[in-house]
Amino acid sequence: MSDFVRNAWYMAAWAAEVPINGFLSRVLLDQPWLVLRKSDGDWAMMADRCPHRFVPLSRGKRVGDAIACGYHGLTFGTDGACVFNPFGRELPPEAKVATLPLVERHGALWFWPGDAALANPDGIPDFAFIAQTGDATDHLVMDVNYELIADNLLDLSHAEFLHSESFGVNGALFEFGKQSVETDESGGLWNKWDMDGSRPPEWAASMVAAGEAVDQWLHMRWHAPASLALFIGLARAGSAQTDFIVPPLANAHILTPKNATETHYFFTRGQGEEAAVMARKVFLEEDEPMIRAQQQAMQGRDFWAMHPVILPSDAAAIRARRRLMQMRREERGAGEG
Amino acid sequence: MSDFVRNAWYMAAWAAEVPINGFLSRVLLDQPWLVLRKSDGDWAMMADRCPHRFVPLSRGKRVGDAIACGYHGLTFGTDGACVFNPFGRELPPEAKVATLPLVERHGALWFWPGDAALANPDGIPDFAFIAQTGDATDHLVMDVNYELIADNLLDLSHAEFLHSESFGVNGALFEFGKQSVETDESGGLWNKWDMDGSRPPEWAASMVAAGEAVDQWLHMRWHAPASLALFIGLARAGSAQTDFIVPPLANAHILTPKNATETHYFFTRGQGEEAAVMARKVFLEEDEPMIRAQQQAMQGRDFWAMHPVILPSDAAAIRARRRLMQMRREERGAGEG
Amino acid sequence: MSDFVRNAWYMAAWAAEVPINGFLSRVLLDQPWLVLRKSDGDWAMMADRCPHRFVPLSRGKRVGDAIACGYHGLTFGTDGACVFNPFGRELPPEAKVATLPLVERHGALWFWPGDAALANPDGIPDFAFIAQTGDATDHLVMDVNYELIADNLLDLSHAEFLHSESFGVNGALFEFGKQSVETDESGGLWNKWDMDGSRPPEWAASMVAAGEAVDQWLHMRWHAPASLALFIGLARAGSAQTDFIVPPLANAHILTPKNATETHYFFTRGQGEEAAVMARKVFLEEDEPMIRAQQQAMQGRDFWAMHPVILPSDAAAIRARRRLMQMRREERGAGEG
Repeated sequence: MSDFVRNAWYMAAWAAEVPINGFLSRVLLDQPWLVLRKSDGDWAMMADRCPHRFVPLSRGKRVGDAIACGYHGLTFGTDGACVFNPFGRELPPEAKVATLPLVERHGALWFWPGDAALANPDGIPDFAFIAQTGDATDHLVMDVNYELIADNLLDLSHAEFLHSESFGVNGALFEFGKQSVETDESGGLWNKWDMDGSRPPEWAASMVAAGEAVDQWLHMRWHAPASLALFIGLARAGSAQTDFIVPPLANAHILTPKNATETHYFFTRGQGEEAAVMARKVFLEEDEPMIRAQQQAMQGRDFWAMHPVILPSDAAAIRARRRLMQMRREERGAGEG
Repeated sequence: MSDFVRNAWYMAAWAAEVPINGFLSRVLLDQPWLVLRKSDGDWAMMADRCPHRFVPLSRGKRVGDAIACGYHGLTFGTDGACVFNPFGRELPPEAKVATLPLVERHGALWFWPGDAALANPDGIPDFAFIAQTGDATDHLVMDVNYELIADNLLDLSHAEFLHSESFGVNGALFEFGKQSVETDESGGLWNKWDMDGSRPPEWAASMVAAGEAVDQWLHMRWHAPASLALFIGLARAGSAQTDFIVPPLANAHILTPKNATETHYFFTRGQGEEAAVMARKVFLEEDEPMIRAQQQAMQGRDFWAMHPVILPSDAAAIRARRRLMQMRREERGAGEG
Repeated sequence: MSDFVRNAWYMAAWAAEVPINGFLSRVLLDQPWLVLRKSDGDWAMMADRCPHRFVPLSRGKRVGDAIACGYHGLTFGTDGACVFNPFGRELPPEAKVATLPLVERHGALWFWPGDAALANPDGIPDFAFIAQTGDATDHLVMDVNYELIADNLLDLSHAEFLHSESFGVNGALFEFGKQSVETDESGGLWNKWDMDGSRPPEWAASMVAAGEAVDQWLHMRWHAPASLALFIGLARAGSAQTDFIVPPLANAHILTPKNATETHYFFTRGQGEEAAVMARKVFLEEDEPMIRAQQQAMQGRDFWAMHPVILPSDAAAIRARRRLMQMRREERGAGEG
C-alpha cells in the first residue's frame, strides 16, 4: 500500500504553518518528520524518531537549531548528527537521524524523498499565482488515499452531482461542456472543460443581460505525484476567454500522502471565515464521505484489479494514474539496476 | 471467514422495511446490496456498488425504477444494466451491476446468492404462522457470527442460566425435561424439549389449581442456513398438548450473516413497546454479550479446531453445523466439477 | 508477539485484590485466568474459559469452591475437573479446565506458566521489604509491552527529562552520577546510580546545611522476567550510605504481560490519596505516553531488528533483554529436545 513515487517533489507544509523557533511534526509518506526553520532562515527536515529508543523527537524540545529527545536527552542537529549525549562524553557516530532536502517556493515547502542527487528545485510546479490572488492558504487531512482525491479533482463533472447545491451548478456542463486533455512543457497534465455559449450559472445570472450567453471554463492542471491547480473563468461569449464577467479564479489543490489511506490536502481559498467554512463543507461533507465509501468498497485492493468501467470523462485521471505507474516502474528498475 | 453457503434462501429484509419509492441498503453475506420494490410491485435486489468508481449506489437516488449514482451520475436499472450516462452518448456495456433473485413470502424477502438455476422458491421455509399470530416483525444486528447464534437457539437449556430472570424459569427443564431431535420432510431439523407432568412456570402458577401438574414444551425448528422458528406451549397434563392453558406461541428467529462476525437477526414478537424492549433486553443484554465473549475467545479460529466438549444437549446444534459443513463441501465440489 | 518466557514466576495479583468468596478474572500472558482463595485458605488459579463453548467462566458464579458457567451451567472445581452437568448424569472427562501453581509471598500471588515440575517457590524474588515499609500496594495496566517498561526502569536517567518536574531532580545525575551494573546470588541484576558528594535535590535542600554535600543513590534490581525493586537513599556525604538524611525508600515495580502490547504494573507507594495520584501522574501521564509512542514507532517489529543505538547507560537494560532471549532459547531447545 505504501508504494509511493520517491523521485518527486511533495509538499510538506505551508511555510506559515511552521512555528518560529519551534518545529512542525507531521507524518508524510508514512514516516514521521520534523520541519523547522533554522536561525539563519534556512529550512530543514529531519526524521521525527530518535535512533536510540525510536520515540518521536517531537516529544522533546528545540535547543537552538537542534532537537533534544525528551526521553534520554540525546540531541540532534539539522544535519542529522548527534551533537550532545548528557550521560556520555562520546557521541556515538551511528546516532544519526535521516534528513531530506526542503525548499520553499511561493509559500509552500517542498521535499524530495527519493535520490537526493536528482532533486532539482526547477521541477517544483509553478504556484506563483497564490501570491497574486491574495488567497488564504489552508490545510486539512482527508481519510482517503491521495490518488482517489486526484481522480475526483481530475473529473470535475462530479460537481454536478456531489456539489450541485454548494456550487449552484445548473447542468450547463452536460449541455455545453467540451472536454479536452492536454500536456504542457513543464510536465503538467490539463483536464479542460469549456462551456462556450452556455447559459450563466445561477449566481452570475444578474451580471449579464437576460438571455445573454457566456463562455465558462474549468481547467484543472496536474503535476506528479498529485499537485493540482484549478483555473475557473466566466467571460462574455465569443471573447476568447478575455472579457471577464468576474475576475478569473485560481486555486491550489496539493495532495501529499500521509499514508496509504490518509492524505494531506493543501489548498488556497478566499480570505475569511465564510470561505474557510465553505471549503470544509465541500471537501469534508461532500467529497470525503463519497471517496471514503469508495476506499472502503475497495478494501485495500488495487484500482485496476477491480476492473473499473472507464468513461471518456475519465481520460485525464487515467493518464495521471498511468504516469504514476510509469514512475514507479522506473524507480523499481533503477533500484534494481 | 466468509465461507458462506451459497445455494440457499436467506432473508434480506421484512417487506415492510423497504421504503416505498425508495430503496433499502444492507450488507448481506459481506457484500452491499440494494433492495427495492418496482412500480409494478415486483421486488428487485442489485449490488450497492457502482462499477465505475465502486461507490455505493445508495449514496445516489432512485429515479423511477432505476438508481442514479451520486458521484458521476451513471444510472442503472433493476436488471443491472446501465440506462443513462450524463456525459456520454454511449452506454458502456460493461457498466453493469449484479442482481439476485428476490422473493416475498409471508412478509419476508428471500434471496438466493448461489447458482440462480437452482433457486426454487418452494424451498423457502414455511413461516406462514407469522400472519396468523399477528405478531410484530422486528430486526436488529448482533455483533456475532450467525452460527454461534444458531447454537444458542438450538440449545434452549441456556435459558435456565442466561435468561432465568427475564423468563421466570424455575428449573423444570432440569427436572422434567426430555430432549428429542427430529427432522421433517421440508428439511427442517427440530430440537424438542418436552416437560410432561411438570410444575408450572412462575408466571402461570395462578392459572392452574394448587399442585396441579402441566405439560410444557419448547420446540425449535431450524432450516439451513439459519432460519429458525420457536413453538412454545403450556397445556393441562396428559392432554397430549391440546388443552392449552394459554394460547401456544410461535416466533421467527431468522439469521442472515452480515459478515463473518455480525448477523442480521429477524424476529417476531408481541405487538407494542413493552415487547420490543423485552426482546432487546434478552437478545442484546443477555445473549449477545455471552456470545460475543465466546467469539472473542475463539479469536477467529474454527469451532471444531478448538475441540469443544460435546454434551448430549448439543445434539441438534451439532447436526445443524454438520449440515452446513456438508453443504459447503458439496458447493466446493460442484464448483470444482 | 506472544513469545513469553514460560519457566519463571510471574505475579498474578496482590492477594488483597481477590474478593473473599469470589474470584478475580484477569488476562495474563494473553490468556484469561481466574484467581480465587478456597475456603481452606489455599490459592487456586484456573483458566477462565469453559471447555464447552469457550465463554469466560467469570460470566458465571462461584458455588462453594467451584465455578458454574453462566451459559449452560457446567461447573468446575479448582483442580479443573467438571463436577456438575445440570442436563446430564455423566460428567464428560474431557470437560476440564487448565490450572496453574499459585503461591503467595509477601502479599503477592505468583504463578508459574511453564513446566510445573520446575516450579520451585524458592525462586520467587524477595519482596519482604513491602511489609517493612508499610507502603500501599497498587496496580494499573499500561498499554505498552513489558520489556519496554523494564527498559525504562533499568535506565533511570530518563527521570532527568521525563520526570524532571514531578521529581524535582536538578541535574545531579549528569554531574555526579556513577553507574555500575552488578548481579547477585539470587539471579538479580542491579543497575546502580550513585551520586557521591553531590548537591542535595531541591526537596531536601532545607535538611542540610547550606553548601553541604550529600551522597544519593538509585539502585534498581531486576529479576527475570520483569520483577523490579527500586532502592533510593540520601545520606550525609562520606557516611558510606549509613547516616540517612531521610529514611531510605524501597518500591516494588513488578511487571506481568497482559499480552504483547499491554502490561500489568504492580507497584508499591506511600499510603494515601496524594501518593496514589502522584504515582498515576508519573506512570500514566509521563512514562506511558512516551513508551507508547516508542511502541507505535516500532510497529510490531523486533527491538534488535530496528538497530537501536546502544549507549553506556543502557548496559543493564541490554543485559536484561539478553537474559530473556537466553531463557527463550533454552525453552525452545527444551521443547524440541
